[in-house]
Amino acid sequence: MATDELLLAPTTQTQPVALGKGVVVGGDAVVLMVGPCAVESEAQLRAIAEAMVAHGLRVMRGGAFKPRTSPYSFQGLGVEGLKLLRRVADEYGLLVVTEALGVEHVPLVAEYADVIQIGSRNMQHFPLLWAVGELDKPVLLKRGFMATVKEWLLAAEHIRSRGNERIILCERGIRTFETATRNTLDTNAIALVKATAPFPVIGDPSHATGRADLVIPAARAALAAGADGLLVEVHPDPTQALSDGEQALPLAQLAQLVAAAQRIAAALGRTVA
Amino acid sequence: MATDELLLAPTTQTQPVALGKGVVVGGDAVVLMVGPCAVESEAQLRAIAEAMVAHGLRVMRGGAFKPRTSPYSFQGLGVEGLKLLRRVADEYGLLVVTEALGVEHVPLVAEYADVIQIGSRNMQHFPLLWAVGELDKPVLLKRGFMATVKEWLLAAEHIRSRGNERIILCERGIRTFETATRNTLDTNAIALVKATAPFPVIGDPSHATGRADLVIPAARAALAAGADGLLVEVHPDPTQALSDGEQALPLAQLAQLVAAAQRIAAALGRTVA
Amino acid sequence: MATDELLLAPTTQTQPVALGKGVVVGGDAVVLMVGPCAVESEAQLRAIAEAMVAHGLRVMRGGAFKPRTSPYSFQGLGVEGLKLLRRVADEYGLLVVTEALGVEHVPLVAEYADVIQIGSRNMQHFPLLWAVGELDKPVLLKRGFMATVKEWLLAAEHIRSRGNERIILCERGIRTFETATRNTLDTNAIALVKATAPFPVIGDPSHATGRADLVIPAARAALAAGADGLLVEVHPDPTQALSDGEQALPLAQLAQLVAAAQRIAAALGRTVA
Amino acid sequence: MATDELLLAPTTQTQPVALGKGVVVGGDAVVLMVGPCAVESEAQLRAIAEAMVAHGLRVMRGGAFKPRTSPYSFQGLGVEGLKLLRRVADEYGLLVVTEALGVEHVPLVAEYADVIQIGSRNMQHFPLLWAVGELDKPVLLKRGFMATVKEWLLAAEHIRSRGNERIILCERGIRTFETATRNTLDTNAIALVKATAPFPVIGDPSHATGRADLVIPAARAALAAGADGLLVEVHPDPTQALSDGEQALPLAQLAQLVAAAQRIAAALGRTVA
Repeated sequence: MATDELLLAPTTQTQPVALGKGVVVGGDAVVLMVGPCAVESEAQLRAIAEAMVAHGLRVMRGGAFKPRTSPYSFQGLGVEGLKLLRRVADEYGLLVVTEALGVEHVPLVAEYADVIQIGSRNMQHFPLLWAVGELDKPVLLKRGFMATVKEWLLAAEHIRSRGNERIILCERGIRTFETATRNTLDTNAIALVKATAPFPVIGDPSHATGRADLVIPAARAALAAGADGLLVEVHPDPTQALSDGEQALPLAQLAQLVAAAQRIAAALGRTVA
Repeated sequence: MATDELLLAPTTQTQPVALGKGVVVGGDAVVLMVGPCAVESEAQLRAIAEAMVAHGLRVMRGGAFKPRTSPYSFQGLGVEGLKLLRRVADEYGLLVVTEALGVEHVPLVAEYADVIQIGSRNMQHFPLLWAVGELDKPVLLKRGFMATVKEWLLAAEHIRSRGNERIILCERGIRTFETATRNTLDTNAIALVKATAPFPVIGDPSHATGRADLVIPAARAALAAGADGLLVEVHPDPTQALSDGEQALPLAQLAQLVAAAQRIAAALGRTVA
Repeated sequence: MATDELLLAPTTQTQPVALGKGVVVGGDAVVLMVGPCAVESEAQLRAIAEAMVAHGLRVMRGGAFKPRTSPYSFQGLGVEGLKLLRRVADEYGLLVVTEALGVEHVPLVAEYADVIQIGSRNMQHFPLLWAVGELDKPVLLKRGFMATVKEWLLAAEHIRSRGNERIILCERGIRTFETATRNTLDTNAIALVKATAPFPVIGDPSHATGRADLVIPAARAALAAGADGLLVEVHPDPTQALSDGEQALPLAQLAQLVAAAQRIAAALGRTVA
Repeated sequence: MATDELLLAPTTQTQPVALGKGVVVGGDAVVLMVGPCAVESEAQLRAIAEAMVAHGLRVMRGGAFKPRTSPYSFQGLGVEGLKLLRRVADEYGLLVVTEALGVEHVPLVAEYADVIQIGSRNMQHFPLLWAVGELDKPVLLKRGFMATVKEWLLAAEHIRSRGNERIILCERGIRTFETATRNTLDTNAIALVKATAPFPVIGDPSHATGRADLVIPAARAALAAGADGLLVEVHPDPTQALSDGEQALPLAQLAQLVAAAQRIAAALGRTVA
């Protein structure tokens, strides 16, 4: 079906995507994926994993390779970060979502991750879309921060055209004229995807706001718009974070996030996983 | 306090604004304001008023003067529209929100309205802000669709600087590069206002989406972000509307909107009025 | 003709607009309109007028009423400013362009100005457009910084629908995600208006850049795109300006601006007036 | 020097970049780089090369790999396209600019191209920036259509941090709310780069407008703002183009483009190469 038709189509049924270990995105339960912006140390990951298990969460996010806008900023732990993520996740029975930066990077990341993330800046990096389109692993496709919903759905088609249908979309905020927040969470886009496309869609309130104090209300808004899950940056001590500290939810507030998500999910007849 | 400080301030207490007849915006109850884009006929208003009463809603919105982008489109019923609004509202015990287009227009509108609306395109029409700042009536200040939150709060200061403190803000979507929806509902802005400013804030999911099928999810998102109410365009038969028909919620779906609002409000410990 | 057709139409002939004293916008000569952001004093205006006469310029711009984003900033000299502008302009044989802020303001401004300016924030203030549409004076219609070219041309239609055909458009930069400059000069829009609409169009490199060091290159770009003139803020001493000092061209650089304009104009077979 | 400082720095001297065969970008001559969006056939390239030689132009652009927004559109001739470009260019004594899509693609493209282009969607694809940073070839770095000038200069730093200092920036239009043109040419950005950074900068009026009828005025505007050259899509018969036909300048109008560039260049004391 053409994308223009998709955007006008009557309400479409979301096709759930199974991540493994019984976790499904796009079903009755909304899935909370949490973790650090960048993997920094085993102690950091372990603290987060323990809190996740305590709240019944199953999917850990974390960045091992973190190319930054400035070449002089912290760029991530690299392969060591991937290994740490995998080791801690296995120990706690968690799944791992992490990003592949380029085609040449896909085999390595696929070895360690349960879900391959395509970052916002790569949403139209077509060779990368084709490469993950040939994998037998779920892909988390972040919306480009200046991409229309139509372009986002077409990027998903680039993946699907190579055979991989396990695609989860992630709205992470768009760039607008507003500067008081890092980006503008586009809850309309979440509702539009739910109404017109078969892909599950989650929200990323961390990048969408850039401010820890707005993460919980933005998480609620994303879920209320229909999101099938959330991707949230947490840190045991945001003041010490090596990247994006101002938007990381302090781990001590994870309980509040989970409670808020449960209340909104319940209002919509859903649960939290 | 300077606005830059406001935007960084710790969570601020909303100052509730009383509209009359016991209706308060910014308190425990979220307030649903509904009505037609443009007043078209007594039959239209009466049908809407009856449905409102049936659902316990108290505030009717409606446009009497509707200057449109093109000079050749329907421009509203004018004074007759104001009179109709007032008459039907009084009969059903409702309050009226309607727009004043310019300084010269304020005395007339103030005669018929309980709440004076300042439209998005007028958010920085300073003489108009000063004029309503001298009234003893609540003002509903819509955010300019290209205005930052800081500019919006400063526009409120222009009103307040003339003495009127009964100001309700309304987020109605901002203009971005996205064209699949008419505007982009900025739920971050709602959360930011709640966190940093004393004014109640409501959401307008009709203008923010431009599509009737997205109005209810957008309404839920606005409330989940913390909105103290909603402003929603409804029409007994949107296919026959003289303006903005594609975004009007069919009156037959008002029950769904109210139910959705009640469920989200309850999740936040609030009620609906 | 519908605006959609206008935007696709084959190249249209610009209809020149006569301002008085033999000055015509939209003819062979590009017209430089210069002056202070805000009228501050007779000495300020006199210094500018002398420099204008020395360079053969004929149209002085200046603001008497300057409502500012913050209610606590300098708001202009008001009627005294209008009188000063008129007096100095008459003494030096210049024409005056100044802004009318609202409908109630039009008769006063029309008494002192040769050209009535509609500000960017008022581009869709329809009652004001109708009011100047009934005057027998040229109108300078600034593009809303959030308005599409189509909306801008429709705003001109609102003026024209009341009888006044002497309309000059002014591109003054649009709001985008870029923050290094105050706005983004849309030279495409200038070229599009020249290709498709009958109105002369000028460029405002002062508001479009917000930086004095970029005013001359932006002025060149606007003219090269086809602009019929420029509106430029100058000040004898920008460090002492009461408003917008960072974007005012120092009067000492007026000679450079004029020379740059002459060279670009000559490259296009035009002159400077 | 930090980028924030760069953006505020006093006027900086452009460091010219030599492309080979005596062609230099950033010196007295503005350099016109023209060619098809996508290489389609030898006949197409030959027609363009002949016209280029007739006008003294030396740098041919052309795309061999053309991943498109939709996976179902023409995606380019691939390696055959690169070979054709090289063969025709050599025959006519021209240089070749063409795009590398990803890290894995760099060695292949470097074998055939004189200048490696980084596309707008790849401006922050950091592994690719690092890869071309290790080459001994000039790099043409297009601005991301969603990137600020600061981010663009930081992307150039990513290249320079690996040793390659031969960087040419290319402003190709940014995404804004305006839909009458494909993008908005940001002439302010050209002026800002010239004032504050050491890199030559060229303009791409084809992508910046998306309309053949606006290419020449936009080319003039870019040069008038200070651009050191242009990148323009031409086609012998745009109605038959396999991609982007609506923005390709008909080859028959190349003479007009060159003449317009010469006149603006002369106004600035420059020549055309």
